[in-house]
Amino acid sequence: MERHFDEQLTVLKHALIKMSALSEAMITDAIRVLCERDAAAVPRIREHEEQVNRLQIEIDGICLRLIALYQPTAGDLRFILGAVKTNSDLERMADLAINICGKAERLLEEPPLGTLSTSLPEMAALASQMVKESLHAYVNRAVEQARIVLLRDDHLDDMNRRITADLLALMQTDSGMITRALDLLLVARNLERIGDHATNIAENTIFVVKGLDVRHHHE
Amino acid sequence: MERHFDEQLTVLKHALIKMSALSEAMITDAIRVLCERDAAAVPRIREHEEQVNRLQIEIDGICLRLIALYQPTAGDLRFILGAVKTNSDLERMADLAINICGKAERLLEEPPLGTLSTSLPEMAALASQMVKESLHAYVNRAVEQARIVLLRDDHLDDMNRRITADLLALMQTDSGMITRALDLLLVARNLERIGDHATNIAENTIFVVKGLDVRHHHE
Repeated sequence: MERHFDEQLTVLKHALIKMSALSEAMITDAIRVLCERDAAAVPRIREHEEQVNRLQIEIDGICLRLIALYQPTAGDLRFILGAVKTNSDLERMADLAINICGKAERLLEEPPLGTLSTSLPEMAALASQMVKESLHAYVNRAVEQARIVLLRDDHLDDMNRRITADLLALMQTDSGMITRALDLLLVARNLERIGDHATNIAENTIFVVKGLDVRHHHE
Repeated sequence: MERHFDEQLTVLKHALIKMSALSEAMITDAIRVLCERDAAAVPRIREHEEQVNRLQIEIDGICLRLIALYQPTAGDLRFILGAVKTNSDLERMADLAINICGKAERLLEEPPLGTLSTSLPEMAALASQMVKESLHAYVNRAVEQARIVLLRDDHLDDMNRRITADLLALMQTDSGMITRALDLLLVARNLERIGDHATNIAENTIFVVKGLDVRHHHE
């Protein structure tokens, strides 16, 4: 019984890791479409979205079965409830990557963005890193790594504020750039929200390990 | 034992209903600050946010205890796992209301918006209605009401697109309006995202009742 439970828990962890890897790839690909004006990645992004959607349903099913069959308590039960939430966060990250991809495709029909979009790959790299680290922290119940994600989120928010200010200034001086600058501004916000979801996962980690709720209280 | 379980389930439902009512009030109040230029509601919004944050932690605790103490199965277990997700959705709605409030406060320092913001109360009313209906559907396991929420979300998305197009046109003709129009555009997006969270809750309802996952498949 115990051995079956541990096996199923491993299946759950692998499914979460796979979903996280897909979300990271979607973010990276969407930013590549945007910044390198390379539409080749679009079909792959859509295919990954399908996989994420299937995994989301699968993971909820695994969590339900784990609780119903094995009646876990304490830390294991918190881990499974946290996995239900983490699952939602990962799916929304993938949704946000799809939003970015949609804007990138629209921007392909417009003149090149030149240096306008140069800060976005850096921001996307940080957001992807947060996704990877938060999920790694979660499945390994690694509190210190979770705390690092919380700190990185402040940095991501700063980047978003800086990019937004630059784009707003541009919109005010060149009305011909307004629609494109708005799209980029919304892409930066999408990346910032991906960071928020990674932060949720990091907070779930601390809750699972310490039984301590750091939401609304972390520094 | 059964009686205690039912009592605790009722406690859970009441906590969810309370959280939903607080989120609805926050949305209505934030739009009032914005459109009626009335800052009087701001302290109430902040107080409601505190209550929402406390309830979020409380609800997760109730769900954890319900599962650990009573080992519910089938529909009841799905209801409790769905409540964990619904809890996250309600908290994010409150967060989005806080975002709207922040923008409303900034706009108080600018000249009045005139007719610019006239569509937002209508959009906010629809979003609030979706919050109320989705939560009502959830606690009563009312599938038909949940389906109505899914339909309303299309309407909300249309309103967002229309408002966005109007504000974008304004930004292009009057550069002095860019920052204010952008704030309003982001408020409309926040309302649209509140509708997405209500949609999540409606989908949870169908899952709990039918054991049927309509995510990524609803019409």
